[in-house]
This record gives sequence, C-alpha cells and structure tokens, in this order.
Amino acid sequence: MEKNIAVIWGDCSSPEIVKQTLRVLDKVAEKYGHTFHYTAAAMGGEAIDKYGDPLPQHELDKCLAADSVLLGAVGGPKWEGLPGEQRPEKGLLRLRAGMGLYANNRPAKIWPQLAPASPLKPEIVAQGIDFIIVRELIGGVYFGNHETHTLENGEKQAVDTMPYAEHEIERIGRIGFETARKRRKKLCCVDKANVLDTSRLWRTVMHRLQAEYPDVEYSEMFVDNCAMQIVKNPAQFDVIVTENMFGDILSDEASMITGSIGMIPSSSLGDGTRGLYEPIHGSAPDIAGKDIVNPTACILSAAMMLRYSFGMAAEADAIENAVSRVLDKGLRTADNMSDGCTCLGCTAMGDAILAEL
Amino acid sequence: MEKNIAVIWGDCSSPEIVKQTLRVLDKVAEKYGHTFHYTAAAMGGEAIDKYGDPLPQHELDKCLAADSVLLGAVGGPKWEGLPGEQRPEKGLLRLRAGMGLYANNRPAKIWPQLAPASPLKPEIVAQGIDFIIVRELIGGVYFGNHETHTLENGEKQAVDTMPYAEHEIERIGRIGFETARKRRKKLCCVDKANVLDTSRLWRTVMHRLQAEYPDVEYSEMFVDNCAMQIVKNPAQFDVIVTENMFGDILSDEASMITGSIGMIPSSSLGDGTRGLYEPIHGSAPDIAGKDIVNPTACILSAAMMLRYSFGMAAEADAIENAVSRVLDKGLRTADNMSDGCTCLGCTAMGDAILAEL
Ligand SMILES: CC(C)[C@H](C(=O)O)[C@@H](O)C(=O)O
Ligand SMILES: CC(C)[C@H](C(=O)O)[C@@H](O)C(=O)O
Repeated sequence: MEKNIAVIWGDCSSPEIVKQTLRVLDKVAEKYGHTFHYTAAAMGGEAIDKYGDPLPQHELDKCLAADSVLLGAVGGPKWEGLPGEQRPEKGLLRLRAGMGLYANNRPAKIWPQLAPASPLKPEIVAQGIDFIIVRELIGGVYFGNHETHTLENGEKQAVDTMPYAEHEIERIGRIGFETARKRRKKLCCVDKANVLDTSRLWRTVMHRLQAEYPDVEYSEMFVDNCAMQIVKNPAQFDVIVTENMFGDILSDEASMITGSIGMIPSSSLGDGTRGLYEPIHGSAPDIAGKDIVNPTACILSAAMMLRYSFGMAAEADAIENAVSRVLDKGLRTADNMSDGCTCLGCTAMGDAILAEL
Repeated sequence: MEKNIAVIWGDCSSPEIVKQTLRVLDKVAEKYGHTFHYTAAAMGGEAIDKYGDPLPQHELDKCLAADSVLLGAVGGPKWEGLPGEQRPEKGLLRLRAGMGLYANNRPAKIWPQLAPASPLKPEIVAQGIDFIIVRELIGGVYFGNHETHTLENGEKQAVDTMPYAEHEIERIGRIGFETARKRRKKLCCVDKANVLDTSRLWRTVMHRLQAEYPDVEYSEMFVDNCAMQIVKNPAQFDVIVTENMFGDILSDEASMITGSIGMIPSSSLGDGTRGLYEPIHGSAPDIAGKDIVNPTACILSAAMMLRYSFGMAAEADAIENAVSRVLDKGLRTADNMSDGCTCLGCTAMGDAILAEL
C-alpha cells in the first residue's frame, strides 16, 4: 500500500522522537512492501516561529490532504508568554477541530516489564491495569464561548461555556460502546450529572444507545468518584467514556498510574479513517537536544496509526512486539531506568527497536 | 463558652456517625467547661421526605442562626430518581451558597498508623503526604447557568456556564495564601489557563495577591498535570488553591491516596467564623443501620469546628490526640482493618475515642 503521512515534527525534544519513529515506519514499509510518503506540516511553536500563527490554514490543509497525521508534541517555555490565540496549544486545538477528531483514545495499560515503575502498590498493579479512556475531543468547555468582560461595579468577570448537543454525545457514546464491544465489554460513562445539565443530557443519550448494545455492561460514575477509583481499583475499568475536560484530567491520572508515561500513545479519530496519532507526553523542553528522550510512545503512536487508519494489523503487532522484546532485554531509556537494566539514549532505543523488527 | 450548633443528622448511615460525634462534643464540653446547644436542621433526603424540598428556608435559617453547623452526609438510592432541583445534593449546594461558604478546606494527610492502607507504594508514602486543597465552593460551573434547549435542527443542546468574578477569586486566593503562611509556605494554583478564560483571570488575580505574600512560594500547575502529580509525588504539595469543579475532582483523588477516606474531615468557611463541618465521605447507604460505619471523619470534623469556628485549639487537639491514641492501640473500624488490629463497630469506636478523652 501507498500512504501519505503528514508529519508534525513538534517542538523541543519532539523532533528527536519523530525521527526515530520515521525510521521504524520506513523499516516496516520495507519489510511489508508499503510506501509511506511524509509531508512535514508545521504546528505549534514551529509554526509560530515561521508564520506567527500556531496553525496556518496551509498547514492544516497538508494534514487534511494526508491519509493520516503523526505528531510528536508541541509547546515549550519559548512560547509561554504569548496571548491565548497565539499559543502552541491553540494550534493543537484547531488541528483537532479542523480535522473533526471527536474521539480521543487514551489507553492506560501496564507493560508487565515496567510494572515496578507504577506509583501504585504491587497488590493493586497485580490485579491488572488495562483500560481505555475514550475522551470527547472537540466539544464542551474547550470549544464553548470564552469571554472576559467588566461588570457594572468595575470588576472583571470571565465566563467559559460548556455546550454539548445530542449528536456530539451520540457519536462519541457510540465509539465508547464499539470500543467496549471489542474488549471486555464494559463501558463506564463518567460525568457530574448531579450538577451539570450537559452531564444529564449525556446520560439521556447514553441510555438510548445502551438499548443498541445489550451485550455491553453499562455503568455510570461521577467524575470525583472516578478520580478516586482509578487509584484505588483500576482493574474495575475496561472502557471509560467522558467529555473533553473530564477526559483530559482522568486520562492524565490514568497514564500516571502505569508508571511510564513515556510509553503511552494515543489516537484521535473522526468519522473517516484519517486520524491524528501522538504520544500523551509533552515536548520535554528540559531534555531537548540531549538524545535521551524516550521515543517509544511516538513509535507506538505510529503503530496505532497503522492499525486504526491503515488497517495494517500485522505491521502494528510487529512494532508492538518489537517494543516488548526490547523491554524484555532490559533495555530502557532514562525515564524508565531501574536496577539491572541498560540505559539507552533516544537514537539507541530507536536502533534497538529496529533491530527487533 | 456557650455555643449553638446546628446539627444536620443526614441520611442512611450518617445519623450513626453524628450520634458518636455529639457524644464526643459533650465530653469535651464537660471537661473544658463549655455548653453546646444542638439544634437539629433537616437537609438532603430527610428534608425531602419531610418537606418535599432538600433545604427549606426555615431549615437554612436554623443553620444561619447557629454558631456553626455540623453535618454527617446526605443522599442515598431512595432519592436518586428525583429531578435535579429536588435531589439531596441540591440541598447541600444551597446550604453552601446560603451560608456564603466560599472556602472549602480538604486536608489530605496520612495518619502514620494507617500508612499501609494507602494505594501508593511505601516509597512514595514515606516521603510524606500532608497537603490541603483549598477549593472555591460557591462559584464556577456549580453555580453558573445550566440550561437545556432545542436547537433549530430539533436536537437538544445543554449548556453549563462557568463564571468567576475577580472578587470571588481574590477572597479564596487570599485564603490559599493565608493557609500556606500558617504551614510550609508553599501555594500552588491549579487551573487550565491554556484553555479557560476563568483560569486566566484566576492567574491575574493570584499574581496581584502574590505581591502581598512575598514569604509564600507561589507556583501554578495545569489541572491535568496536577492529577498526575498527586499520584506521582504528593510530597511536593503544601497548599493547593483551585476552582470549584477542579477542587471536587482533585480533593477526592487526594483523599484516596491517604488510603482512609473514613478519616478525613473538612471545613467550609466564609467571611465570618461560622462554618460547615463534614466528613468528605458519603452517606454509605450499603452499611446503614449496621453500626459498622467509621465515625472518625465526623468526629474530626467536630474537632475542626472547635478549632476554626470557636477558637478552641486545646479542645481540638484533645480530640485529635484521642483519635491518634486509639489508632496506636490497633483499634479500627471495618474500613481500615488490617492484620493484628481489632475491629470495632461505630458505637464501640465512639466509646474508644471517649475513653481516651
Ligand atoms: C495542551 C492541552 C490544550 C491539551 C488538552 O487539554 O487537551 C493536552 O493537555 C492534552 O490532553 O492533549
Ligand atoms: C454531592 C456533590 C454535589 C458534592 C460536590 O460536587 O461538591 C460532593 O461531591 C462534594 O464534593 O462535596
């Protein structure tokens, strides 16, 4: 197969991980007889520096013209003082919206080889941590109206609005049920229905969908309770579906309990097969240019792209198995080091994964 | 001293813990020569059953007429199907607003005797968990406009609004700085300033206050990152100040890492000394009437009331020390049981604490 991949190299240490990822993709292409064409697209700090805009239309167009998009991570201290509209994150939010990517999949899964790195007790980890947070990505308070005005008494008031329409809930709810159906068939809808109207509308829509998925065990949980349960008993979860802001918070918490956020990929998808694939970690400005950043989450994001956007399951398996064998050999980057393991830099970790392919 | 305490007995297993708490208060009164008058006020399920309203004005008036309010916990399956305005939680929200309680203090502190119950690894717990979340309690999306309407295309849309005015931020920000000043002098403001206008206004106001508290080390963190850091490295925190919804989620997460939510009290205060004191746990419907619920969080809430509303520091110390000695003796309720300890029911735990007073 021939595929066009838009590549957002990203900021700070991000180009280092993207570089290793493209080496892995090239190797897979060679081995399985595919051709991947890469088109660099600028977003985030790089785009601000080049165009004064975190995502100019022509760069978004490159992403829309591609079969899928691979992203490292954007942002860094250099761009932190800028006003809201010109910040790197704004580019990311506009990319998600511009590509119609409403479904963000964030797996929280422990690699057995890295289990000791979890901040949770071994007894809890031993029960298994393997769930997915399906986060709504282009609605809610992220994309509602934001305004700051002056009240009659002279003080300022800011107001953010959190809107959700039925169709926005239905399409992500469906992804939640479909994802659960392919796994252990348990879906938990997380919300704050005792306070929010949006949450109550979520529940109404979810109940409607539930009738279509009688094989899936459906439950509901308040977000504050969920923040507790993820720490107390993560084994209870299979798939969690939730709105944008709750998903942001809970998925970060969930990734941390795996103990190795340098290993966690994510996918963002819309109605078609074109997606955006990125590690959940940031651009790690503090270690940029040192060739010590962990490229694995980005490499695993590419594997997700092969699986979910290109239907290349064997190729994705090959990458994931290569990563697993590298871990079996005790090879680690600095973020995951433990006694008895060998510490590799970013390029060397890329080499190690390539060698297993 | 003579003090009037409004007592909200609460629902399900709540009256059991309140009963033990009043026994403890009576003992303190006797020992230190105080008189506490109790006035029962109905809120939550009890008020719904009696008056069809989770907080009728006459019951709120009882709270406003008191020197302080003690609450167990409200809610339960019996009232879950009711529409929003008639649910027990609505009573709690109206009580907070009606009493002007904008500052919710939620300590996350490990009792050394219960450290093994933490879901976190011993290495992390050993670094110390002792921080306070100062949560804004009567603003933000909890008290903004909530509405559900039909769009032109016939589908429903729900919209929740999250407003914050400068004075609302300033008063809670000040509590954050003051609280930090009395402790290890570190304050972290948690928000989502890369997305929300309200968060950006929070930062503006916090920066203004910062100038008045040069002795406090001030920092800022995004809420998603904070949800990670609480699990990864809780020792880094002293005082966290945050808006209502983020505070709800993070304080529940924080209480869980202590491993014993049956031990965590909370206070909610406004401008005066009158406060609302309640355990952070719920009404535990599943164990109601069995005399096995842990009364300690409610008893410790009463201790907080003595300390913060009545200025009775020695009396509060006496209660807290009594609880600590009970734990030293290996006495536990079922929720905190571990090998070698003795399991007590609710009344017996009350007896044990009384005996140490
Ligand atoms: C950078 C930020 C706007 C973004 C978000 O909140 O969605 C990030 O935290 C994420 O989760 O991808
Ligand atoms: C019951 C609910 C409305 C309440 C809240 O969200 O504030 C509770 O979770 C709490 O934290 O006291």
